[in-house]
Amino acid sequence: MKVLRNCWYQAAWAEELALDAMLARTVAETPLLLVRDTDGAVSALLDRCPHRFAPLSAGKLEGGIVTCGYHGLAFDGSGACVHNPHGRVTPSLRVAGFPLVERHTALWIWLGDAAKADLALIPDLSYIDAAPPNARIAGYLPAAAHYELLTDNILDLSHADYLHPGSLGGMMTNAKTTTRIEGDAVIVAWDAVNCDPPGAFVGLVPPPQKGDFWLEARWSAPAVMTLATFAAPTGSSRTPDATALTLHSMTPETSATTHYFYCNTRPYLVDDVDFSAFLRGQLERAFSLEDKPMLEKQQARMGSADFWTLGPALLAIDAAAVQARRKLATMIAQETPTDGVPAERRA
Amino acid sequence: MKVLRNCWYQAAWAEELALDAMLARTVAETPLLLVRDTDGAVSALLDRCPHRFAPLSAGKLEGGIVTCGYHGLAFDGSGACVHNPHGRVTPSLRVAGFPLVERHTALWIWLGDAAKADLALIPDLSYIDAAPPNARIAGYLPAAAHYELLTDNILDLSHADYLHPGSLGGMMTNAKTTTRIEGDAVIVAWDAVNCDPPGAFVGLVPPPQKGDFWLEARWSAPAVMTLATFAAPTGSSRTPDATALTLHSMTPETSATTHYFYCNTRPYLVDDVDFSAFLRGQLERAFSLEDKPMLEKQQARMGSADFWTLGPALLAIDAAAVQARRKLATMIAQETPTDGVPAERRA
Amino acid sequence: MKVLRNCWYQAAWAEELALDAMLARTVAETPLLLVRDTDGAVSALLDRCPHRFAPLSAGKLEGGIVTCGYHGLAFDGSGACVHNPHGRVTPSLRVAGFPLVERHTALWIWLGDAAKADLALIPDLSYIDAAPPNARIAGYLPAAAHYELLTDNILDLSHADYLHPGSLGGMMTNAKTTTRIEGDAVIVAWDAVNCDPPGAFVGLVPPPQKGDFWLEARWSAPAVMTLATFAAPTGSSRTPDATALTLHSMTPETSATTHYFYCNTRPYLVDDVDFSAFLRGQLERAFSLEDKPMLEKQQARMGSADFWTLGPALLAIDAAAVQARRKLATMIAQETPTDGVPAERRA
Repeated sequence: MKVLRNCWYQAAWAEELALDAMLARTVAETPLLLVRDTDGAVSALLDRCPHRFAPLSAGKLEGGIVTCGYHGLAFDGSGACVHNPHGRVTPSLRVAGFPLVERHTALWIWLGDAAKADLALIPDLSYIDAAPPNARIAGYLPAAAHYELLTDNILDLSHADYLHPGSLGGMMTNAKTTTRIEGDAVIVAWDAVNCDPPGAFVGLVPPPQKGDFWLEARWSAPAVMTLATFAAPTGSSRTPDATALTLHSMTPETSATTHYFYCNTRPYLVDDVDFSAFLRGQLERAFSLEDKPMLEKQQARMGSADFWTLGPALLAIDAAAVQARRKLATMIAQETPTDGVPAERRA
Repeated sequence: MKVLRNCWYQAAWAEELALDAMLARTVAETPLLLVRDTDGAVSALLDRCPHRFAPLSAGKLEGGIVTCGYHGLAFDGSGACVHNPHGRVTPSLRVAGFPLVERHTALWIWLGDAAKADLALIPDLSYIDAAPPNARIAGYLPAAAHYELLTDNILDLSHADYLHPGSLGGMMTNAKTTTRIEGDAVIVAWDAVNCDPPGAFVGLVPPPQKGDFWLEARWSAPAVMTLATFAAPTGSSRTPDATALTLHSMTPETSATTHYFYCNTRPYLVDDVDFSAFLRGQLERAFSLEDKPMLEKQQARMGSADFWTLGPALLAIDAAAVQARRKLATMIAQETPTDGVPAERRA
Repeated sequence: MKVLRNCWYQAAWAEELALDAMLARTVAETPLLLVRDTDGAVSALLDRCPHRFAPLSAGKLEGGIVTCGYHGLAFDGSGACVHNPHGRVTPSLRVAGFPLVERHTALWIWLGDAAKADLALIPDLSYIDAAPPNARIAGYLPAAAHYELLTDNILDLSHADYLHPGSLGGMMTNAKTTTRIEGDAVIVAWDAVNCDPPGAFVGLVPPPQKGDFWLEARWSAPAVMTLATFAAPTGSSRTPDATALTLHSMTPETSATTHYFYCNTRPYLVDDVDFSAFLRGQLERAFSLEDKPMLEKQQARMGSADFWTLGPALLAIDAAAVQARRKLATMIAQETPTDGVPAERRA
């Protein structure tokens, strides 16, 4: 599949990869082996031995060295062969390696030209680091839909009124919506004043009070979004300490499947265990039982057809999603052919 | 798939679509939503919202209006948008609609040029309406085989001797078989005189009597057949009040799957509940456990190959089936390109 | 799929095809019906009726005659129609037949030009016939991998050290390995002196003794290998009566699936029932639970890509496998187009 290659994709949550352990995961149709050594350092290899193409994930890891389970070739975290039981170790005997960086409780992988893998390009999600663990609700959801459908879903939250009416929606359709571009970011904000609170917000706006709601989704390529959410009784001033920030990070697995990572953080009710459990339930229900099935049905209806070829009817609510799609398409088109060389040819 | 488009296909039995309810069904690779409003009127829409392509069947129906479950666009039975929560309702905001007509206890859909959807072209199955409900045995069988294989199966009933020897066959191979064309219909008849009755007919010809059997299958494009069956002790005169009429209606779902609808009606033993139950058992067994598995194995052996490309050995028993195939192929070839435009491009 | 056609493939073990019975099996994407008549004679037909393409395996066998279950056409073992209930039997009414020969407890099929089906080309596996039944351990394993991956596996037994360390491996990597070509055969031998015995060999080299091990795999096209194995306490002379011979026979089913037949024979411990059971357990475990999963993962990682296109890193241990691959590729390339005509077009 054609994706942006010179960018960081979230490959996993950091905690998915234990100390001295391996994790096999496919990103953009590239089978990867994520490795963490005994010191905690992470690395990523193509999950395919260069000798006979057995998956390295079927082998074993010892001291940061991965040994193929079929013929015993061993590779370090850079992909260099460090042991060949059957002859000399030559420089050409290596498996493709990929920059992998742990940051913001996540693992970020670079599929493109490694020389361009600038750490400064990792999205700034320092709010996750800043949030106390009790006030973080993270999840991982594999979804059988193209990652841009998942992006569209976040950039057009009007859907909450129809898909999540009991928990997250109700005030979105009539909210004042504004879309703007800041550098490479696409930003869309919703302002709803003096509305009944949806179910997930009754902790912040206890009925029969009415509330003001403000949400802002900030997208950066390829598909990382931070959603700011403010909810308070009508008339309250919006302040950072009343604003929740939620990561929605979409990583293509194949052209029809996506790794969906999310992480809600909040600066309030931090140690309220009951609220945490309640909110986790609301989010998991909305994402797993409402968003995911709808997105998968949408993908099934589209089949293998290209989104634009089907001629979607564009509404005002699509402004941000369309901007993001166009920006991403432009960035992909501008990559040089070399950037797009599949990983397996670059070993 | 390439099918005849300017014709009526049976989309469902009328009773499959309850009052104030929806039914999703794919015909000729076109995903459809069948709708019945609170007054009983039926309509059919493409089951794909024009906005983001979510299936409308994942939404809800109220008062004949279908509301998409993703963003709340609402459509009436013609496909016109009647509510857009996010902006103006424009004439271009519509989903493709298809003529859908309830007749003869069935729902008939027209996939082609709606201006040509002539009700007079619906096959005349008034014998179904005329039959008392006690004397009707209707069924629906999804089958993993091309619809023309199912048509072939009815137009060559010699197979009954081999596939249904205990119930429907025994006298077919040696019956006098004649094939003729009447206008657009292909008709094949079998005459068998003084034969042992097959199991399903012992109610009409109790052993040790012998019987005369006459069957006639009448095909019209694309794939609707009525099978007349007469069975009586040898020497009896053939009369309408001793002749059963059975619909065999084949609707393509995809190039390798078919909606098979059947409805047996009889003018005799009308209120004999035991006979009804016995006959239903015989038919269901023959169609579900004998025809369907054989047709599905046949399809599996053919794979995606075209029937004619495989070079079938033609026998005399194939005359009617080959006539029907040729007639249908000619009709499809004669349709104009516009007639063949996929529904999703005509919205 | 493109395979060598003028050669014998093992279609089954003889005992898989009972007296007066049929067996459906696909070889090189050709669906076959193997038939054994009441006298024990075997024959093979295309498992697809020439009339309507129903599988003949869905019909019945009586007295060596196969009758199609759909319309009653009957065929003898040569593929000639011997009964047509619906008209004349003409010479053109036949199903493709294939030479099938029972030899060495196996059934061998010839997919190519029948005029070239020379019995002398059946691999000489007389050691199987010579082995007492108590000293034969035969098995059949369907594997979801290309047959050449299974061939590679046998021609490079160094993998035993990594994949079967507890049972068959341990001394292979450091063994002296030699590869040679004798006529059309590719032969690879391993010599390991004064080594600890792997688990499967402790019956021949009881610890704490050390042993000498010699293995030789002899490949002939398309994919039949005999593996000679000698194991004895260090310093023993290698003699035939201490050498086990094991058939590894790989028959392509599709481009990604293989029928794997194996048969271990030994001239020692012939009537030792406990040793037989132990050895059977060791082999079944190694082949089913270690080789098969690894080969299937290897195939999954390769997907539909051609082996050479992926640019495998070649090591010294690959010498024999590469020779065999090249020899087979040359033989396939040298076949005339007629040899390669699919069976279904040659009826």
